[in-house]
Amino acid sequence: MIPSKEEVVATYTRVKPFVHQTPVLTSSLLNKLAEAKLYFKCENFQKTGAFKMRGAINAIQQLSEAQKQAGVVTHSSGNFAQALSLAAKNLNVKAYIVMPSNAPQVKKDAVLEYGGIITESEPTLDAREKEANRIQKETGATFIHPSNNTDVILGQGTAAMELLSKHQDLDYILTPVGGGGLIAGTALAAHYGAEKCRVIGGEPYEADDAWRSLQTGKIETNETANTVADGLRTNLGDKNFHIINKLVTEIIRVEETEIINAMRLIWERMKIVVEPSSAVPLAAVLRKKIIFENKKIGIIISGGNVDLKNLPF
Amino acid sequence: MIPSKEEVVATYTRVKPFVHQTPVLTSSLLNKLAEAKLYFKCENFQKTGAFKMRGAINAIQQLSEAQKQAGVVTHSSGNFAQALSLAAKNLNVKAYIVMPSNAPQVKKDAVLEYGGIITESEPTLDAREKEANRIQKETGATFIHPSNNTDVILGQGTAAMELLSKHQDLDYILTPVGGGGLIAGTALAAHYGAEKCRVIGGEPYEADDAWRSLQTGKIETNETANTVADGLRTNLGDKNFHIINKLVTEIIRVEETEIINAMRLIWERMKIVVEPSSAVPLAAVLRKKIIFENKKIGIIISGGNVDLKNLPF
Repeated sequence: MIPSKEEVVATYTRVKPFVHQTPVLTSSLLNKLAEAKLYFKCENFQKTGAFKMRGAINAIQQLSEAQKQAGVVTHSSGNFAQALSLAAKNLNVKAYIVMPSNAPQVKKDAVLEYGGIITESEPTLDAREKEANRIQKETGATFIHPSNNTDVILGQGTAAMELLSKHQDLDYILTPVGGGGLIAGTALAAHYGAEKCRVIGGEPYEADDAWRSLQTGKIETNETANTVADGLRTNLGDKNFHIINKLVTEIIRVEETEIINAMRLIWERMKIVVEPSSAVPLAAVLRKKIIFENKKIGIIISGGNVDLKNLPF
Repeated sequence: MIPSKEEVVATYTRVKPFVHQTPVLTSSLLNKLAEAKLYFKCENFQKTGAFKMRGAINAIQQLSEAQKQAGVVTHSSGNFAQALSLAAKNLNVKAYIVMPSNAPQVKKDAVLEYGGIITESEPTLDAREKEANRIQKETGATFIHPSNNTDVILGQGTAAMELLSKHQDLDYILTPVGGGGLIAGTALAAHYGAEKCRVIGGEPYEADDAWRSLQTGKIETNETANTVADGLRTNLGDKNFHIINKLVTEIIRVEETEIINAMRLIWERMKIVVEPSSAVPLAAVLRKKIIFENKKIGIIISGGNVDLKNLPF
């Protein structure tokens, strides 16, 4: 089932008071390079530095009062851990975050700063899931998946809704594809909120599960994911794949060097700090110029949480 | 002589069509850290990546038609070279740029991209001045100094005018102090455009000529300038010192580690790319918290042109 237009609209009303309405930036130099008009929706300026705040806020708000009392739990070492922590804090809900024991201290500190309660697990997916399960049972907390959760997906779509409210005549919106929450939410927003706006995903060749899934019509997974775009190493889920399969036009795959080149262009030309995952859509536009020539293209800059001591250029 | 209010207002009318009205960003995390309300005027998003575009545009516009026909000349290896090149191009004027032979290729490329005509000189101030002199004589071009020129100073002040038009009740505006054009222009803007807004400069201990000049009442120079804030290694001139001496409240000096720390805070927390010079005012606010506690403070982010392969952190 695809969520209805009413659900999409109601989500924005719910999410809006808790997030920044992030700016849309343009760059005449990048437009020249792409031979198109690019509109960058800057979720790197969002609270916690990524779009994930939107989905987290929506998912917690959709819980019953009893569920809120018991708290929420997730396993993540990335942006969703921070987002769920801050969203929960803003809504007076406890957030239990399972993080792998080898997660960088800076990420643990960020979660603690936003009020998350950290439990460490062995650094395997299996161990993380078991630990999250245990917390669920002991505390009654509700598990919130970072991307395969309809309320999370709906929340992530609000970035595109804001973008379309400013630029209604976009021909395309591009997002990176990792777990699939952002692109699925974006596809819903464009489906109900624009006349003719197609949604396209950008994905590294090194983690091209979404591209392969659209080819075969069923969820494929990544055996390895050796990509600099660390936010895109995860696999799709059934809830977002269902939406992606119906509403996303295409996935464009890009090489690692293209990602790094696009990231440097954004830093140097737009003077903003973005994480590698955020550069994947621009890399896709530059790779397939023939599709995008002279079009109006929205690009969701997914986040700006990056280790300044470990840049890829 | 201090320029009049009429001149300040007329400058903005002249400059406005040729520059971006750059955004003013805030950060709740930095406000918490500073225990004050900070308003960052983001001239890193300005054309050519720095406020210098404003002064260059104004200075060229103030030339006679005959002068414009003959072109402009400057010597600079930094942001003013790019700014004068693009400003001249926008006004259909030739720009001769004298650059030291050892200037990085990336900076030469930027000047060429904006249409500047480069002449290389030996990398000493004396050689650069001689070469600029020669071009002046041969072509009839007008020499435009990067900071010690009243029209340049007036142009640089338009960033603060825009900031004050959005936030009229600022208690302070802080800028970095290098050649002195930005702070002098800002002081004029605050003098005529605000009721009670004081202007304070931030300066590295390693290049504290402005601080010493305000102590002695005459222009002091830097013997050495071993600061990471490469835009602030130059000395004051008579035109801007006259204004600074009359209208600037104070210069606060900061250590190199404070500059680097403030720069990292801006990158990590605000997700914007700024050059080291731009971090000096925030470093000053954090060093002298007692002055700024609970105040509303404008900070001019002077630019974002930085070598991503050579970051200080």
